[in-house]
Amino acid sequence: MLRGLTSAGLGKVENDEQLIALASEYGFQAVDVDAQGLVERHGVEGARELLASHNLVIGSIGLPVEWRKTDEDFQKGLTKLTQVAAAAASLGCTSCCTYILPSTDYKAAHFMTLATRRLRICAQILGAYGIRLGLEFVGPHHLRTAWKNPFIWTVQETLDWIEAIGEPNVGLLFDAYHWYTNELTVADIEALRADQIVHVHINDAPDVPVSEALDNGRIYPGEGVIDLAGFLQALNKIGYRGAVAQEILSANPPSDSPEQLAKRSKAGFDKVFQAAGL
Amino acid sequence: MLRGLTSAGLGKVENDEQLIALASEYGFQAVDVDAQGLVERHGVEGARELLASHNLVIGSIGLPVEWRKTDEDFQKGLTKLTQVAAAAASLGCTSCCTYILPSTDYKAAHFMTLATRRLRICAQILGAYGIRLGLEFVGPHHLRTAWKNPFIWTVQETLDWIEAIGEPNVGLLFDAYHWYTNELTVADIEALRADQIVHVHINDAPDVPVSEALDNGRIYPGEGVIDLAGFLQALNKIGYRGAVAQEILSANPPSDSPEQLAKRSKAGFDKVFQAAGL
Amino acid sequence: MLRGLTSAGLGKVENDEQLIALASEYGFQAVDVDAQGLVERHGVEGARELLASHNLVIGSIGLPVEWRKTDEDFQKGLTKLTQVAAAAASLGCTSCCTYILPSTDYKAAHFMTLATRRLRICAQILGAYGIRLGLEFVGPHHLRTAWKNPFIWTVQETLDWIEAIGEPNVGLLFDAYHWYTNELTVADIEALRADQIVHVHINDAPDVPVSEALDNGRIYPGEGVIDLAGFLQALNKIGYRGAVAQEILSANPPSDSPEQLAKRSKAGFDKVFQAAGL
Amino acid sequence: MLRGLTSAGLGKVENDEQLIALASEYGFQAVDVDAQGLVERHGVEGARELLASHNLVIGSIGLPVEWRKTDEDFQKGLTKLTQVAAAAASLGCTSCCTYILPSTDYKAAHFMTLATRRLRICAQILGAYGIRLGLEFVGPHHLRTAWKNPFIWTVQETLDWIEAIGEPNVGLLFDAYHWYTNELTVADIEALRADQIVHVHINDAPDVPVSEALDNGRIYPGEGVIDLAGFLQALNKIGYRGAVAQEILSANPPSDSPEQLAKRSKAGFDKVFQAAGL
Repeated sequence: MLRGLTSAGLGKVENDEQLIALASEYGFQAVDVDAQGLVERHGVEGARELLASHNLVIGSIGLPVEWRKTDEDFQKGLTKLTQVAAAAASLGCTSCCTYILPSTDYKAAHFMTLATRRLRICAQILGAYGIRLGLEFVGPHHLRTAWKNPFIWTVQETLDWIEAIGEPNVGLLFDAYHWYTNELTVADIEALRADQIVHVHINDAPDVPVSEALDNGRIYPGEGVIDLAGFLQALNKIGYRGAVAQEILSANPPSDSPEQLAKRSKAGFDKVFQAAGL
Repeated sequence: MLRGLTSAGLGKVENDEQLIALASEYGFQAVDVDAQGLVERHGVEGARELLASHNLVIGSIGLPVEWRKTDEDFQKGLTKLTQVAAAAASLGCTSCCTYILPSTDYKAAHFMTLATRRLRICAQILGAYGIRLGLEFVGPHHLRTAWKNPFIWTVQETLDWIEAIGEPNVGLLFDAYHWYTNELTVADIEALRADQIVHVHINDAPDVPVSEALDNGRIYPGEGVIDLAGFLQALNKIGYRGAVAQEILSANPPSDSPEQLAKRSKAGFDKVFQAAGL
Repeated sequence: MLRGLTSAGLGKVENDEQLIALASEYGFQAVDVDAQGLVERHGVEGARELLASHNLVIGSIGLPVEWRKTDEDFQKGLTKLTQVAAAAASLGCTSCCTYILPSTDYKAAHFMTLATRRLRICAQILGAYGIRLGLEFVGPHHLRTAWKNPFIWTVQETLDWIEAIGEPNVGLLFDAYHWYTNELTVADIEALRADQIVHVHINDAPDVPVSEALDNGRIYPGEGVIDLAGFLQALNKIGYRGAVAQEILSANPPSDSPEQLAKRSKAGFDKVFQAAGL
Repeated sequence: MLRGLTSAGLGKVENDEQLIALASEYGFQAVDVDAQGLVERHGVEGARELLASHNLVIGSIGLPVEWRKTDEDFQKGLTKLTQVAAAAASLGCTSCCTYILPSTDYKAAHFMTLATRRLRICAQILGAYGIRLGLEFVGPHHLRTAWKNPFIWTVQETLDWIEAIGEPNVGLLFDAYHWYTNELTVADIEALRADQIVHVHINDAPDVPVSEALDNGRIYPGEGVIDLAGFLQALNKIGYRGAVAQEILSANPPSDSPEQLAKRSKAGFDKVFQAAGL
């Protein structure tokens, strides 16, 4: 598995170039960046060299399409999606992810039909560039009632949705925080196949009741109560070999410098990977 | 358009052979029957002759698969589906229908993923035999809350679901009662393309507030308050040429003889088709 | 059916604005234009007004994607496809077409797998904007051996391909010349459903043996040997209501002025529509 | 990886029960059997116990559908497919395979459209039971011209076909003989993902020029010239953990007893697995 960084948890990172420099300095192997931006600023060759010279690959990019609102909103994102996918593919990236809010103001069943069709179109476009689409189920309890109607938030629901979408290149973004807030076990991970997982997020939870763990209350790996050793061991056991990217969402951005935070992140990764025997 | 009969509304019809005889006697052109049963009792050639000698075609068959419960229940119906589809195709039938309950005890969004996948499989199997799958949206208000969670019941929701299923051979079963209980207009029909409609049901509603019209409170065409002339004109205008089959669901079966009820049905059809200028 | 014009057959038409003016002047109801170009030059509102003030709709646009070569070539066209589709949809156009060369230098079966996947992606993208994809089978005999291996050129092969693509929004571009060079009959058209036809081309063939009719040897409707009255009657009979667009491919561009050629086109349409009783 | 046996190469094996006994006796872990037959003769529980008591799982079953001929032939197999899939699933089998003849008397591109659609339907049905469909590319040179037109026979062509089919549960049946007769390398296997492989066949080739290796001229693993150590190492390296089933097709059935042949098979497996360091 590749140790990965996102900018979430590094405070005021100025740009992806700084993220790349920090990731490299602290021994990470993957970064989640804006591939299109890199290509625009450096050209394809320049961006490839920037990554290669830092011994980094791109872990994943974000899906630049609004699939949760109107058809018009959705349509507007498709040109961008083709551009982003082309840029990502040119840099060797094969993963693009989006998250699923666990409740919705729309009528849930109807919204599911719209979302299914839209994500299928996104998956087809991404597939044209050899990229997979990862869907992130979102576990924190408070979000399940943040909007009027419950949507989906469990692994099984997400896997069933993936089957409904029906495209070969769709899988899970598996986030430790959502695994924890869904109160899942190591066995639940071991029941998966590696090819069902497109990307992995890692982070930790404070010592509060699970039902009170807030989505933006995440902390650094190894500083909380999630069994991250078990999490990593299970992913390794089923053969997952992709990126495990730190994503720390917090109510207030950390005040330390990106440098200090990257160092702290490295310490967290060292701790939990060591605990996992990896 | 073909005038069609189902056994719903004919009281104690003994079997499809009687339904066929009555349909023919009273000038109907289509019957919704158990195609497989006909073939089992008469052979393919015999069943074809039975229909042809009565100047009848099959309007539609019912989907013999339980897609609303567990995966196991669903799987169990697939063998039957292949047999029923083969029998129907051998008799020239190209339509197979199922209805959508407007509420569900399952979590609505999750159930939609399961149902989407299952109906796609059914559509694929039916498509192998040249048969289309019609989905009947169900409008009566009381059913929208008959189970825990709202599912879908409008034309637009159903069309969006059909796009989510994503197979070319899926369309609407358009029932006059559900058009009425959804408080739709002639313009709503005229906004459709004929090829979006797989089958049509006709029946009428008693003079009660729309929101109190019960699913099993239907009456004979022309005896109630639905604008069936407008309904038929709109279907004709968009080019629909398939069967319009009477389906009268009632709390208690009518006590008249099938012969009397078929005669009454004919009178109803005469009235509304004449009113429609067809 | 809508009388339609393309620029093929009008000689040196300067731009789509001239095509629109000529189409309007000579009583046509549809034009095949570059929707994106119109929108770029006039804005969405301006382009809508330009069409509306000339009593014209867009018949169809061309598929701006190279699906016959490498994956890289294909990928490069997808951004453009999203832009073109958005422009076309903004002008009310619901049809986008491409043609199928009847032979290929690639291994035929393998190329079919690539082309199937690519056109499915195109269909999905177009579907996001409410646009259908029309596939034009190409009949002239000389093209069947113009490249190393036979590909497909019949209606049935194309319908089977459409089923293999498996998207609901794919159908035929039905061209009179290819109907003729496939030696098909009125009954072959009557065996189709209107919804299987996305767009229609009309033109005529010189009085040479069918097997010698060249793809770029087409002449004006009513000036040749194709039974265009039967062609139009059959399309009308099955309920086709879209555009019938003149497309005249010739080895040398006609030397008459666009004005003269549009007038001649009108005369041809008058003749064959009258002969068809339409 | 699981050592697997098929009856091909064991001479006159009387039935699957004998195959199971021999497989168990000689240390195999998987058998390719007729799951439906086992269930018919032993019941689901009995068949499960038969397998479990011999420490065996089912490697794969054969696709019981004629997808290479007419639509009617294809349709006839679908009922059987649902039954076979249900039986296989009840015994824990998740793999069903078919082979691709590398040439065809049909027009190749057209046949590809038909075959694509048919195998998609099969994949959908199998998917309903949690079963994957494995497609076996067939390499021997003489078969590439055994019928009129070349079809497909390479790994890449088959992967491209799998993308054209477009279902998530379709992958490769990877046979050592076809790997060899396609003159592929260890690197070609290492370029695959484990999840692209549904099943594996192992066998060996005589010391004749590759282009003269006959499809039914296969010999026992370790007795020929194929680099089976490299083959197994590469499969292991990419993470394939399924069955590697011996399949020896020969012009004349071996005359030795099944017992002797099973013993010989074990010796072959021991040799090549040892050579591979597995």
